[in-house]
Amino acid sequence: MSFLRGSVSYVWCTTSVLGKGATGSVFQGVNKITGESVAVKTFNPYSHMRPADVQMREFEALKKVNHENIVKLLAIEEDQEGRGKVIVMELCTGGSLFNILDDPENSYGLPEHEFLLVLEHLCAGMKHLRDNKLVHRDLKPGNIMKFISEDGQTIYKLTDFGAARELEDNQPFASLYGTEEYLHPDLYERAVLRKSIQRSFTANVDLWSIGVTLYHVATGNLPFRPFGGRKNRETMHQITTKKASGVISGTQLSENGPIEWSTTLPPHAHLSQGLKTLVTPLLAGLLEENREKTWSFDRFFQEVTVILRKRVIHVFYTNRTSSVEVFLEPDEQIDNFRERIFLQTEVPLEKQILLFNNEHLEKKVTPRTIAKAFPATTTEQPIFLYSNDDNNVQLPQQLDLPKFPVFPPNVSVENDASLAKAACSVGHECKRRVDIFTSMDILIKKGVEHFVEMLITTLTLLLKKTESFENLLSTVIDYADVVQSMARVTKGDQELKALLSALETVKSDFDGAADVISQLHKHFVTDDELNDQWSSSMHGKKCPCRTRASAQAKYLVERLRDSWQHLLRDRATRTLTYNDEQFHALEKIKVDHNGKRIKALLLDNVNPAVAQIAECLADWYKLAQTVYLKTQILEKDVRDCERKLNGIRDELYHIKSELKLDVDTKTINNNNQLAKIEERNRLRVMQQQQQEVMAVMRTNSEIISLLSKLGIGKGIGNGGLKM
Amino acid sequence: MSFLRGSVSYVWCTTSVLGKGATGSVFQGVNKITGESVAVKTFNPYSHMRPADVQMREFEALKKVNHENIVKLLAIEEDQEGRGKVIVMELCTGGSLFNILDDPENSYGLPEHEFLLVLEHLCAGMKHLRDNKLVHRDLKPGNIMKFISEDGQTIYKLTDFGAARELEDNQPFASLYGTEEYLHPDLYERAVLRKSIQRSFTANVDLWSIGVTLYHVATGNLPFRPFGGRKNRETMHQITTKKASGVISGTQLSENGPIEWSTTLPPHAHLSQGLKTLVTPLLAGLLEENREKTWSFDRFFQEVTVILRKRVIHVFYTNRTSSVEVFLEPDEQIDNFRERIFLQTEVPLEKQILLFNNEHLEKKVTPRTIAKAFPATTTEQPIFLYSNDDNNVQLPQQLDLPKFPVFPPNVSVENDASLAKAACSVGHECKRRVDIFTSMDILIKKGVEHFVEMLITTLTLLLKKTESFENLLSTVIDYADVVQSMARVTKGDQELKALLSALETVKSDFDGAADVISQLHKHFVTDDELNDQWSSSMHGKKCPCRTRASAQAKYLVERLRDSWQHLLRDRATRTLTYNDEQFHALEKIKVDHNGKRIKALLLDNVNPAVAQIAECLADWYKLAQTVYLKTQILEKDVRDCERKLNGIRDELYHIKSELKLDVDTKTINNNNQLAKIEERNRLRVMQQQQQEVMAVMRTNSEIISLLSKLGIGKGIGNGGLKM
Repeated sequence: MSFLRGSVSYVWCTTSVLGKGATGSVFQGVNKITGESVAVKTFNPYSHMRPADVQMREFEALKKVNHENIVKLLAIEEDQEGRGKVIVMELCTGGSLFNILDDPENSYGLPEHEFLLVLEHLCAGMKHLRDNKLVHRDLKPGNIMKFISEDGQTIYKLTDFGAARELEDNQPFASLYGTEEYLHPDLYERAVLRKSIQRSFTANVDLWSIGVTLYHVATGNLPFRPFGGRKNRETMHQITTKKASGVISGTQLSENGPIEWSTTLPPHAHLSQGLKTLVTPLLAGLLEENREKTWSFDRFFQEVTVILRKRVIHVFYTNRTSSVEVFLEPDEQIDNFRERIFLQTEVPLEKQILLFNNEHLEKKVTPRTIAKAFPATTTEQPIFLYSNDDNNVQLPQQLDLPKFPVFPPNVSVENDASLAKAACSVGHECKRRVDIFTSMDILIKKGVEHFVEMLITTLTLLLKKTESFENLLSTVIDYADVVQSMARVTKGDQELKALLSALETVKSDFDGAADVISQLHKHFVTDDELNDQWSSSMHGKKCPCRTRASAQAKYLVERLRDSWQHLLRDRATRTLTYNDEQFHALEKIKVDHNGKRIKALLLDNVNPAVAQIAECLADWYKLAQTVYLKTQILEKDVRDCERKLNGIRDELYHIKSELKLDVDTKTINNNNQLAKIEERNRLRVMQQQQQEVMAVMRTNSEIISLLSKLGIGKGIGNGGLKM
Repeated sequence: MSFLRGSVSYVWCTTSVLGKGATGSVFQGVNKITGESVAVKTFNPYSHMRPADVQMREFEALKKVNHENIVKLLAIEEDQEGRGKVIVMELCTGGSLFNILDDPENSYGLPEHEFLLVLEHLCAGMKHLRDNKLVHRDLKPGNIMKFISEDGQTIYKLTDFGAARELEDNQPFASLYGTEEYLHPDLYERAVLRKSIQRSFTANVDLWSIGVTLYHVATGNLPFRPFGGRKNRETMHQITTKKASGVISGTQLSENGPIEWSTTLPPHAHLSQGLKTLVTPLLAGLLEENREKTWSFDRFFQEVTVILRKRVIHVFYTNRTSSVEVFLEPDEQIDNFRERIFLQTEVPLEKQILLFNNEHLEKKVTPRTIAKAFPATTTEQPIFLYSNDDNNVQLPQQLDLPKFPVFPPNVSVENDASLAKAACSVGHECKRRVDIFTSMDILIKKGVEHFVEMLITTLTLLLKKTESFENLLSTVIDYADVVQSMARVTKGDQELKALLSALETVKSDFDGAADVISQLHKHFVTDDELNDQWSSSMHGKKCPCRTRASAQAKYLVERLRDSWQHLLRDRATRTLTYNDEQFHALEKIKVDHNGKRIKALLLDNVNPAVAQIAECLADWYKLAQTVYLKTQILEKDVRDCERKLNGIRDELYHIKSELKLDVDTKTINNNNQLAKIEERNRLRVMQQQQQEVMAVMRTNSEIISLLSKLGIGKGIGNGGLKM
């Protein structure tokens, strides 16, 4: 009861702490009228010692801002028992980004989707501050809250941004900050190293903090890590001020050892290669200490806008069994997409087979389609990429698995909780890999399915095409035959010979192709041999999605976390009773046991299974790619035949047209049948006449010869007939 | 510490109670060596008063059984402080079916999937008992545990089944049972009504209990409900013994009022119509009191096997925007499937358009494909059904929403928790409906997409077909033209006239169809008008999946449950401090507020949105169905043209072959050109000869006439020529 506090409209309980800072604490409270849950910030005695106007500044800044990405002010009220003003704000049930990054689940940073949310919201919130001429000066994960809206969406919101104004008053600064790793080198110098500095602090001190924060969110680690951590202040200052442009992290691994600089994000971060390429220059720009190269806020805003407006296309590269994310400008087109794919996979543009929903991407995406209008993809429903060139399958390279910590035999409430947390972190990494393998398993199967479906569709269409082509071909052959017949009647078929032999060639080419097509169709459509080969080679394989490896990993990580929480409670208790110590020891055994189990799940169960699947895929793809290539050749063959046949048909048409003219003339002559008959009749008459004439002549000749014997008319006989 | 108990290998804490029964309690415990969590059953003093052999029977029964669906015995050990034997069993983290059914989420019974699991596991567990000649005699939801395996799967397991043996010893029975609603009428008579009865109890007393349990699981309610509940024992006995065969529930709604009998499951149960049809006769068989009609265990097992072996095919009936589940025998085929669809939707078999994955189901399922080999469907990836006949769209009828309870103004720790629970139950019902509407929203959109894709594919293929047909047609026309030319040369083209006019008709028919096809293709493929119409009519509609209504409903139900839990804790506390009472009152306000909000979400937000979507769907389908019907007609037209053209081609071929024979003969004659020339030459000779002859004749005639004038040879001149 004595824990209950109140103001006019709100009550809160001092046992439900949400967070503690330098100037006060934040509790979960409730509106007395509506029951709405809120966050109540109360101030500690130290904060009340500050000048009244300084105290008021936070309230004023809070009243000035009003934006979705800044924690909303609900009321400023007085504690009913005179403990001073309290700030009532909307409750962010997701906790702070600090808590989130501190969770062993996020030891290597947040997942890509979440990183992008932080980037977007942080940037929008910052812009609002900037528009209101406010500089936060204490940006860090602890001041970025995760709000979960009633419809389940995550919104990150800035909070506690009024504090930095106090800096101008030359107040002790360091004590205000729990964490100083996020400070701009200049501020660090002044506030942590307590050196006096004549520079003025502009908005870019916030940009630096955003850079450190984003690096932390992306990787789970701070970018600048002197050996020994925060206490090693001089080295810290050295790292941040000595770093070259473009360097985004510096780590000192031994006491007074050298700094290891890096211009790239570490490989274990969960961001995709596509995003890393975009984020690295952003971080380099933000973490730029050199005033001449330093970014303006507008530049920052611009660069982030460019990243956020990009369209993400999810690709699964089947030959490397790995997911690829391609970031495209909204107006880029398929050629840019293919180029971007080439950069990430080294598959040449013309060798990329891209399938989406069982068909070639080109069915949905024309060369003019802009990225904005590309079909929506997700990691689970990506565009599948196969190399036309390379029929090998390789699993992606795996990073070394971090080691599970080993508990010393003695109970140490302090140490054991940290070791359990480290075990959880490794456990989460195991789980993540099991999950990746599981989705790889699913995607490989989808990749096989899509390819087979595409081939089936292609072969089915091709067979149909051959059928209709066959029809056309036989018609053209008949056609050519008639034309030839006609040509013989008229001017002869000499001219046709070449055409007919071309037709002959087309027919024999086509028959060859049609034969192979119908064989392929029989094997790979009717008998479904590609699916058969796949399922028989996969038969009995312990695929992670069949063995429910993800669910098992989830269970084991939850058990690890349970034990960690138990050990955390024990640490809070400090001294344990005998029985509690027994239970404490049991939890350590369980951590050990479950750690071994999840590791075995990954290494002895999932890894070999996935390797086997990859082998099956390799065997299958060797066949599938061959069929695909054959099909492509056959498609070309049939197209060639079509082209040639069309040419032949056109020529036939011309020949036919000419012949028709000839024949038509002939036909008109022939049609004059009567004239012919008359002529024939006339001829017959002529013959008859001639026969009569001959008879008369013979008679006459006899008479004449008789007369001649008589010696009469010799002179007359000049023109006479000699028989 | 005093709460800690132990045996040789296990420890447990008496504060972590899992359940309490008549003979003892069950606690969560842990293995001292491995840390494995277990359930420990300890016995109360009353149980120890039972004869030693009776006490031993439970242990013996437990040792006898060993089955996945019976809670596994791990050890029987002695309490280290002499409190007697303890039974150590595997821990079922899901609690008992009683707890599950008691949750306001399940006020109307479990979801279908979970019901089927209970049925399967209960039946398998029972079979094992039966195989071991054990009768449980106290089957009820409280004795069915939900085990969640490490890979996240649910397994229901029977427990506490050794108890019923005691019945033979004529012991006070009723006191052993917390719930008596599940007892077979005979047992009820003896144990609850304490009447002595001469009948022996066979295994079917278990069947009755299974019937009551399954009814409870399916509906959330007991089947037999006398007014006033359990206390009204005589009516209870009456209901169960007087009920007719086939009746599966009897409810008395007023004191001494009539019993309302029912032979069907209530409409609010979450089982699909398809499953209800199968489960109702099962329940009727189990809840059969008449000894002559009563089922044997084997019959029960058989009937359950039939239900469980069925293949469930998920269908979304787009015109009624509702999900339909079709249960098929594994060897049934598509005709049976269509019949079953007809029974549930009244869409006649030949009017059912069935699409799966953007194409006609027939592409994947031949008439001979058996149900076992049908493609896998889920509620989210169903087969889509559209009526070819009916282009209306209707939303499914909605049951009345149960009312939210109204809190009386005063604080009543006893009542308020119950009212809050009732509010949660209504809240869950609201959420369920929001979820159904949300998935309806998604499925409608998929249904539109599938239909459009199917049409696009069909029209694209049809256009391709017209293109290749056009090619063929023009070739045949040319072909016919040559044949005609030839026919004219030989026997005339009279015979061809009919054929040519048929070709003319095919051409004009086809040109008409091709015209419409290319128009349809332009509108609905190139210009994508069906998608356009859909998206423009849907523009700005507040679809539940866009407004994230499901996530909102989830949030609100969680808030209702939080308040319920708060009020439950207050009930456990019994007396509240002043402040606690304030908080208690606040929770009531919140329940009220959140209840109103979730109801408004459903009624004012989701319902109207879904009604609008249904309207859009109706408008869209009117167009889509028209296009589909047109396409079907055009497909038929093109097929007809093809058929006719093939006929024409065949005829042409015959005519051509004949003509060719004629022409060939002619050609041979014609080839004899020399003969012709000779003939002509001969003719010319003949003419010359004749002319000569005529000349000679004239001369001769003159001589003869001269001679005649001289009077010579008058007698000779008989045969002479008169000119």
